[in-house]
Amino acid sequence: MDVKNGLGVPQETLDAEVKSFFESAPPLQNRDDISGKLEEFVERNSAVSGNGRGRRVVCVTSGGTTVPLEQRCVRYIDNFSSGHRGAASTENFIKAGYAVIFLYRRGTYQPYCRSLPEDPLVECFEITDESNIQVRQSHAEAVKKAITEHHAAVAEGHLLKLPFTTIFEYLQMLQMIGVSMSRLGANAMFYLAAAVSDFYVPWKNMAEHKIQSASGPLDMRLVQVPKMLSVLRKDWAPLAFCISFKLETDAKILLEKADVALKKNKMHMVVANELSNRNEEVVVVTANEKISVRRDKTQA
Amino acid sequence: MDVKNGLGVPQETLDAEVKSFFESAPPLQNRDDISGKLEEFVERNSAVSGNGRGRRVVCVTSGGTTVPLEQRCVRYIDNFSSGHRGAASTENFIKAGYAVIFLYRRGTYQPYCRSLPEDPLVECFEITDESNIQVRQSHAEAVKKAITEHHAAVAEGHLLKLPFTTIFEYLQMLQMIGVSMSRLGANAMFYLAAAVSDFYVPWKNMAEHKIQSASGPLDMRLVQVPKMLSVLRKDWAPLAFCISFKLETDAKILLEKADVALKKNKMHMVVANELSNRNEEVVVVTANEKISVRRDKTQA
Repeated sequence: MDVKNGLGVPQETLDAEVKSFFESAPPLQNRDDISGKLEEFVERNSAVSGNGRGRRVVCVTSGGTTVPLEQRCVRYIDNFSSGHRGAASTENFIKAGYAVIFLYRRGTYQPYCRSLPEDPLVECFEITDESNIQVRQSHAEAVKKAITEHHAAVAEGHLLKLPFTTIFEYLQMLQMIGVSMSRLGANAMFYLAAAVSDFYVPWKNMAEHKIQSASGPLDMRLVQVPKMLSVLRKDWAPLAFCISFKLETDAKILLEKADVALKKNKMHMVVANELSNRNEEVVVVTANEKISVRRDKTQA
Repeated sequence: MDVKNGLGVPQETLDAEVKSFFESAPPLQNRDDISGKLEEFVERNSAVSGNGRGRRVVCVTSGGTTVPLEQRCVRYIDNFSSGHRGAASTENFIKAGYAVIFLYRRGTYQPYCRSLPEDPLVECFEITDESNIQVRQSHAEAVKKAITEHHAAVAEGHLLKLPFTTIFEYLQMLQMIGVSMSRLGANAMFYLAAAVSDFYVPWKNMAEHKIQSASGPLDMRLVQVPKMLSVLRKDWAPLAFCISFKLETDAKILLEKADVALKKNKMHMVVANELSNRNEEVVVVTANEKISVRRDKTQA
């Protein structure tokens, strides 16, 4: 009746919270389409090839999830994340021979396009005197690299891009991916770089219409999102290798929180980031050690 | 002691709220740079040209503002807006002979780029057998139009683009633009299409570090953003022609709210939108009439 699971909450309470989250979430619009693409991608990449084994598959999550505050959504809470790390990691996984399912927030950085300006179409191109479009010399290398490498990854079938916006879309898609990748056993990896909301407003508690501003301050109560990483480990894809990320702004509590996340969610590895210097240094935390990794400044 | 201003709050209360908002806001990073660009743009476009008068200048605001929930910001509340209308209106104002200050949310739709796919660089271009970059035939017209018209507007000095993210950035920049455009008298227009937060967390009340999720539900109190449109009308640019937008999800209260906004903020015109059909029909509300405007379906 009171089985603990490392999360400090009884297993049946967590199960009930997870059930309630998914039952009350608005259904995915294009569930069948996503499901078809996923099945085909995992099936094809896991097929045994010339070297006698299938390709390893990693799901890279990237960008932040949103939490709607109204059902007909005008306002929402967002988690900041540019998606730069997820995009860069996707490129490196493909280079290392993985097939990548890139589960990304709409509008965040895309693989192979990180070194381009914010508004590439307007800034990288010009019109010649003969009314042709040409790439500006200053951006020629970056543009060619972006287009060539992106097209190659897609054409060779090693990159599947799936966009999300809300926490409801993200967790439903992560569940579908987990279940679909479970057949790969230990050939599956989850690299969970997305910034996922900790709090949400359950759909059924949500105001239908835009919240009105006429009558004084606005008081809101948000409830915790169930700890889905432990469900991914336990139920969706129990044999997959799982890496999660922990971001804090306060360096003093970071490593302790990373340790707790490792144990609570049974991750194989947690990458600890401090907001202010996360592009220069991270600490990789496993059950046995903490390894500090610094940017190689000799590289671009 | 109790002078009313149509807002239902004493004038001195509003003045105190406005003062407190600006004093507690984090200062703009690049204030001097923005100020220099603004002065030059307004000065040049208002100079009397061959036709004996200066160019009219309109400030188009576009996209939604964010409200940070933490000082070192990981989480924020956002207002949904693609910026499509602001971008489209900017194109039309330039075509009609206006100079446009486009105050837009980073990452939203840009003028001349509305008809392109979400990821134009990757979707519109391909590499030829000779390793050159070329535009895909299917997107050739749209890409050429986007680049040509955007470059022309910038090169002719009729378009100044200024990006914002937070409500603090937006209102400080709107104030700078208002004061800078006030010298144009009735040759100035404000076309306020941005989706601006009604509620915010004052900077000094804000948590410094990321809010922790360990201890149960999250209760938040947000306070109302002072009604800055009335300050724009009264103090910043009293002679400018001002158009604001009212978005509601509930059709029953929309026109009433638009009427209230017109009177409270002393707007010349309020464009009333209902979320679900805003791309097909809007109602233009003035002191004297309400004009329903429907999309011309014979146009693309």
